[in-house]
Amino acid sequence: MITLYSYWRSSSAWRVRIALHYKGIPHQVVAVNIAPGQDQQYRSEYVSKNPLAQVPMLELETGGTTARLVQSMAILDYLEQCYPAPPLLPAEPLTRAYALQAAETINAGIQPLQNLQVLSKLQGFGIDTKEWTRDAIAYGLSALELWATERAGTFSVGDQLSVADVLLIPQLYNARRVALDPAVYPTLLRIEENCLKLKAFSETHPISQPDAQTRD
Amino acid sequence: MITLYSYWRSSSAWRVRIALHYKGIPHQVVAVNIAPGQDQQYRSEYVSKNPLAQVPMLELETGGTTARLVQSMAILDYLEQCYPAPPLLPAEPLTRAYALQAAETINAGIQPLQNLQVLSKLQGFGIDTKEWTRDAIAYGLSALELWATERAGTFSVGDQLSVADVLLIPQLYNARRVALDPAVYPTLLRIEENCLKLKAFSETHPISQPDAQTRD
Repeated sequence: MITLYSYWRSSSAWRVRIALHYKGIPHQVVAVNIAPGQDQQYRSEYVSKNPLAQVPMLELETGGTTARLVQSMAILDYLEQCYPAPPLLPAEPLTRAYALQAAETINAGIQPLQNLQVLSKLQGFGIDTKEWTRDAIAYGLSALELWATERAGTFSVGDQLSVADVLLIPQLYNARRVALDPAVYPTLLRIEENCLKLKAFSETHPISQPDAQTRD
Repeated sequence: MITLYSYWRSSSAWRVRIALHYKGIPHQVVAVNIAPGQDQQYRSEYVSKNPLAQVPMLELETGGTTARLVQSMAILDYLEQCYPAPPLLPAEPLTRAYALQAAETINAGIQPLQNLQVLSKLQGFGIDTKEWTRDAIAYGLSALELWATERAGTFSVGDQLSVADVLLIPQLYNARRVALDPAVYPTLLRIEENCLKLKAFSETHPISQPDAQTRD
């Protein structure tokens, strides 16, 4: 059995929920409330499993022991290795690289600047974290829009769903949370519309999660 | 011909230099001076090729056209696809995931918080960026040390060189630049010693680069 430790609003956890659903991998989801003031990720029981104190974490029984994986891109790659169909990485090397490049622009370019641990530190310095987050998201999404105008079909890279889309849709959700209007990214919005028609996206959406809360 | 756009002190560019050397891939290196005040990455000619205005960028001729790849993890994956030997990703899925998890903890956990664009913004807010960088590096390296005590052999994950090492060594170089003493990570230091015996690391070291400058 595979267990995903998740938080409804974590964009990184949503990425893994999408891949698990899309590939039809049986799993259970355990909610970790990382909301400021709740801080369940810092409990000793969780930190002993994941020293980074973050979600997502994937727990799996293998060879009689329990293995734990963190970092969403490593988890997505692991799922691709073990459950290759349907694929989330294109077969052609350059197309695959374009998909990973878009995904990493979010994973290593945008998300690290807007995760809760960083925003909490910035708030301590009296910085307007909404504006900071908007700037970080806009910088990355502008590059993604440019690449998408060259490469997108139904999805970010051609007509096959890929890891680029798996990261894009949660990022667009985050953009709206900080009042960044994605209308300036028409190609990304078209891709989002196509993705949200798929159950792998709609049924794993933050608001569909059992731990979804109404707080803003 | 493959061209790598690099900067001697960019830890992300060093990752790609290591992989190109280790796999014996013929290439040329073009220096982009991203030092504050030089800012060659913001020149229109470069931005037209890479809207993120960052190094590394890999340029390759393929099928009569010029393709450009950015984001070091996407570039490393592309090189692994096209030049699989010697490998930088373990064959066994879980071992591969552990290697990628360590690499992503640097790529998406540490490096984004200490890149020049972010530090320049933080300086504008009057924040002590050396302390900020030290905190970010220590947080990630602590997790890497813990995992390494469980999994390291000669290298980060067993006895085979992997993407985890390719990211670790440049990160340890950065740690020293902000006066973080890596002595608290004895396993990582042992791995570093083993890696630096390899020409793929020593000959691609920042101080071995033609654009290396003496400024601190």
